[in-house]
Amino acid sequence: MSMTSPFVSPGECSRHQIFPGVQIQTCAGEQMMLSLVEFEPHAVVQPHSHPHEQMGMLLEGELTFTIGDETRTIRPGEMWRIPGGVVHQCVAGDKPVKALDVFHPVRDDYR
Amino acid sequence: MSMTSPFVSPGECSRHQIFPGVQIQTCAGEQMMLSLVEFEPHAVVQPHSHPHEQMGMLLEGELTFTIGDETRTIRPGEMWRIPGGVVHQCVAGDKPVKALDVFHPVRDDYR
Repeated sequence: MSMTSPFVSPGECSRHQIFPGVQIQTCAGEQMMLSLVEFEPHAVVQPHSHPHEQMGMLLEGELTFTIGDETRTIRPGEMWRIPGGVVHQCVAGDKPVKALDVFHPVRDDYR
Repeated sequence: MSMTSPFVSPGECSRHQIFPGVQIQTCAGEQMMLSLVEFEPHAVVQPHSHPHEQMGMLLEGELTFTIGDETRTIRPGEMWRIPGGVVHQCVAGDKPVKALDVFHPVRDDYR
């Protein structure tokens, strides 16, 4: 991914499979990283945590999300904010799911 | 907006009109702020800058975006990264535009 342009097309993003059926496309800035997440139906992000703050918005589909001890099934337009160190997990509904996450600072493991 | 839940529905966001025909709905975390931006057709964000780093992704419509001295007309899925202090501006195309921006640190003027 070029650092010379402020514009990044999807094809220029880094791609990673982070769990079975869960793919991300990432774009690093200086202090933040965008991550476009695509879930196959019923795909699961297992419980995990990281020191980075994470926020995001659901773009498509339905996601059952647990952050700390709160669980909610959310729909497009709904947002989340996960302080660093808080355990979170989620599972996609019956249709494909698309979400945009952002991390601060940059997650080096997702570059 | 409640700080007690990690989940934020659109109705709980703060709303601001930042330019004629340009509305934002914001959600503050600890070190980042999400801003869902909606443009009426042909609405203009005038040239401006701020010390906050800004990244984002186009969700709907077409946006002609200038960052520093580079101008590009972008489509949904394309991303941007604007270092703090860099002048930027944009204009919506013939249809309504929706974008998700994120700032670091939190923009107090958008709380």
